[in-house]
Amino acid sequence: MSLLVVGSVALDSVYTPFGQTADALGGSAVHFSVAASLLNRVRVVGVIGDDYPVDQLTRLAPRGIDWGGVERATGESFRWKGKYSYDLQSRETLETRLGVFADFRPQLPAGSEQAKFVFLGNIDPELQLSVLEQVDRPTLVACDTMNYWIQSKREALLALLRRVDLLMVNDAEAREFSGDWNIHRAGRWLLEQGPTRVVIKQGEYGALLIEKGRTFAIPAYPLEEVFDPTGAGDAFAGGFMGYLARRGLVSTDLMRRAMVYGSAMGSYSVSGFDIQGFEGVTTEDVEERVRRFVDLTHIPAADRIA
Amino acid sequence: MSLLVVGSVALDSVYTPFGQTADALGGSAVHFSVAASLLNRVRVVGVIGDDYPVDQLTRLAPRGIDWGGVERATGESFRWKGKYSYDLQSRETLETRLGVFADFRPQLPAGSEQAKFVFLGNIDPELQLSVLEQVDRPTLVACDTMNYWIQSKREALLALLRRVDLLMVNDAEAREFSGDWNIHRAGRWLLEQGPTRVVIKQGEYGALLIEKGRTFAIPAYPLEEVFDPTGAGDAFAGGFMGYLARRGLVSTDLMRRAMVYGSAMGSYSVSGFDIQGFEGVTTEDVEERVRRFVDLTHIPAADRIA
Repeated sequence: MSLLVVGSVALDSVYTPFGQTADALGGSAVHFSVAASLLNRVRVVGVIGDDYPVDQLTRLAPRGIDWGGVERATGESFRWKGKYSYDLQSRETLETRLGVFADFRPQLPAGSEQAKFVFLGNIDPELQLSVLEQVDRPTLVACDTMNYWIQSKREALLALLRRVDLLMVNDAEAREFSGDWNIHRAGRWLLEQGPTRVVIKQGEYGALLIEKGRTFAIPAYPLEEVFDPTGAGDAFAGGFMGYLARRGLVSTDLMRRAMVYGSAMGSYSVSGFDIQGFEGVTTEDVEERVRRFVDLTHIPAADRIA
Repeated sequence: MSLLVVGSVALDSVYTPFGQTADALGGSAVHFSVAASLLNRVRVVGVIGDDYPVDQLTRLAPRGIDWGGVERATGESFRWKGKYSYDLQSRETLETRLGVFADFRPQLPAGSEQAKFVFLGNIDPELQLSVLEQVDRPTLVACDTMNYWIQSKREALLALLRRVDLLMVNDAEAREFSGDWNIHRAGRWLLEQGPTRVVIKQGEYGALLIEKGRTFAIPAYPLEEVFDPTGAGDAFAGGFMGYLARRGLVSTDLMRRAMVYGSAMGSYSVSGFDIQGFEGVTTEDVEERVRRFVDLTHIPAADRIA
């Protein structure tokens, strides 16, 4: 079923203990769609400047990404520069240049108003709300956000939460937004703001799917090599939404499986710089990794143990 | 089957944002046995001074703890004083007074040489080795350790690892011992030192059971209130070993279930100060919590989803 993502299409320069990139393909919509497209066709809405390496971007197109909703504006593309700590557990933003992204006003291309699965990547919550005005009756709307909007646009963010089905944030964001360090109380508080479900990403520790009265926890895939955490959360969202769009419905059971697809995509994402972790990855590879998650978390039944 | 724990029987003074204790029952062998005894009879080997509140300790005896192996020496009991950060994620040791523990030389009481399940709590690895000299043919020997021994008695610890079946440590200890920040590489390195299995506890993020070529991950039980993390790792070990002793065998499947019992015990432990989190907890409560873990981690099969 139709899947739409609105978010940044950026150029990232990243420093990790294992190497660095300069002006590499990045941005929430890119990481999201590279992952999602392994499961379902995805349409991207965003903006790039006239300096963006469009050839690199469209080389991804055969994988099922529709870049038709990416506006090309005059000026510089959104650039982000960041540096990770030795253990990749924390990062420092060295530079953010919004460029054409500063004036981005998402306009959905014709036909997108029928989108059934909508992911609002981490942009100004007022813009996220404006996207919702342009879609008819989506089956599922999920959104991301970040500390910057939590601090500067809290009211708009709360208005957004009343209109989305699912909020997907990392643990630090959940704690900051709720003002509660206990992640389960923070999740419950977020549910009380409107969404039916909250996904809290915990990096190398996995992720939680919190619903009223019920929680699902999935560990991260065991990786002996991690190169670049940038975009892992967006790749998670892409796997999550891509799986649901492919199935065309929502339910707790489907969401739980979607969490596994999200986790699988997160594990590919961190295995390479920018989007290189997905190089050569096929849908069958993803299915195999999902099966490995089932083994990773399997608790044998007491009466079946010799 | 017979279960034996060797470790500290201490008096803890703990400061957390939610309250404090003074000279409360603590020590690895106490936390371990309070948890284990909900599943299997357990014999404790340790030492206390003549100031220890034995009446408090033996009040626990009806729950199936045999304190007969706890030597009563002249002098002060082992005391530990610590303070936790606002989010309980880190702690500072304010004071350690070894007292009679400084001269502790574990002597197993008659009959203990037949113990089949042996847990060597966090004490000097040379003493842990000396306990192994006193047991005949245990089914499973597991041990804990800490940064202090990793730094000061590395060779003895490596000698110990060659003789135990399972090492149970927290993530910081695994990283420090292996010199590797990647927890899965750290786990593999620890396996290479001798044990067949390594359990890595990750606090609020759960725990890993690492075997050659296969890993099991279990999240922590979702708790909205956590009061005191002291002893949670020992309670985990108690649940883990208690379950295996009750079943009387070891296998990967049993170990995976043992991880769930360990996690359940950890969740009770942090729910109260010292050992109060276990007050009123029955074996049936534990079984119910284990069932909740199965739901918490359950990934629905794709073909069973509507």
